[in-house]
Amino acid sequence: MSDDLARVAVLLSGRGSNFVALADACARGEVPAEIVLVLSNKADAGGLDRARERGIPTVAIPSKGMPREEHESRLVAALDEVEAHWVCLAGYMRLLTPVFIDRYAPRIVNIHPALLPSFPGVDAQAQAWEYGVRVSGCTVHLVDTGCDTGPIVLQRTVPVLDDDTSDTLAHRILEQEHVAYPTALRMLLTRRWRVHGRRVVFDPLIDVDRPWPASAN
Amino acid sequence: MSDDLARVAVLLSGRGSNFVALADACARGEVPAEIVLVLSNKADAGGLDRARERGIPTVAIPSKGMPREEHESRLVAALDEVEAHWVCLAGYMRLLTPVFIDRYAPRIVNIHPALLPSFPGVDAQAQAWEYGVRVSGCTVHLVDTGCDTGPIVLQRTVPVLDDDTSDTLAHRILEQEHVAYPTALRMLLTRRWRVHGRRVVFDPLIDVDRPWPASAN
Repeated sequence: MSDDLARVAVLLSGRGSNFVALADACARGEVPAEIVLVLSNKADAGGLDRARERGIPTVAIPSKGMPREEHESRLVAALDEVEAHWVCLAGYMRLLTPVFIDRYAPRIVNIHPALLPSFPGVDAQAQAWEYGVRVSGCTVHLVDTGCDTGPIVLQRTVPVLDDDTSDTLAHRILEQEHVAYPTALRMLLTRRWRVHGRRVVFDPLIDVDRPWPASAN
Repeated sequence: MSDDLARVAVLLSGRGSNFVALADACARGEVPAEIVLVLSNKADAGGLDRARERGIPTVAIPSKGMPREEHESRLVAALDEVEAHWVCLAGYMRLLTPVFIDRYAPRIVNIHPALLPSFPGVDAQAQAWEYGVRVSGCTVHLVDTGCDTGPIVLQRTVPVLDDDTSDTLAHRILEQEHVAYPTALRMLLTRRWRVHGRRVVFDPLIDVDRPWPASAN
């Protein structure tokens, strides 16, 4: 454990391919973070196996049959116990209430497989394909209590090809998700930013290739 | 006049920069079309002046104070008189009713300064900037009676930069509109296509660089 690394927890409900992308990017040193916990609301989520393979602690807190606020209180307790500072949702298939949001916002991040605000909610790739857009993509955003409505950090585009099916489109979007999510998390952890209105505003990058002092403009 | 050129009419309400882009592309032979009429619902629309400069016939049929269906009947009469086959909307700031749509669909095309279905309606660039998207763009679509809801032909993306304002974003989107609209019109005029569900499906391009017969796959 390093004091220089952000303590990130991941919430997932399924195979967790975006968790794997984040974990690999952290392991390669591309994102200054340590994934300190993988939490799932499904005991059989494949992402928990991927975490165990990597020696990352896991906790499953099944949501089925449990009142929503009690479930979230237990999630928060598990996150507090490992002193998580950031929470990344990676295919976590439930909306979060203020019980959770108020504890961790604005340091809750999600990735969505469409260019929000187009196609929020489930099956975004199929929604986009059926709508007939010629460009789709993925969106990393801060999480609020709405469905995929929070301030946007980063978007990457994916063209819809003439011979695409919903599945081939989803596959190419997923490839871009695996690039976008680590990139966005690195931006959030390494740059100064604020939310202005509902825009995520990053301070200008210092141009390290330019001799100091940088010339005016 | 050539029998090989599609007879296209343009409807506009303002300066008509997309009309100019279409007219220039036609004049350069990039789009196999002839603009046979520019129609406006505003007698003082700058686009009418641009048309006159190019020797393109113009008609103004002011919409103000006229019942909507009567106005559209007069538009249709003007289009019928010049035997227009296609209608391109270029900053035409009114919705069209079945009086017009049923006469010319599916050969009515519009361009919208956002990646539909995000940000339909007026001030799309400002809507996108205020929402905080990181990617916007423009959409060429077939026109139905909804507000920017018709099947999509082509989209081009424009990144939203950290130091963009709504105006700088709108300027860069406009540059892409001027590329997208002629490109989309050329596609519609030169390729086989159909609307499937609400997707515009183009038949595969014949690869003209490959000797005939093209090898399988």
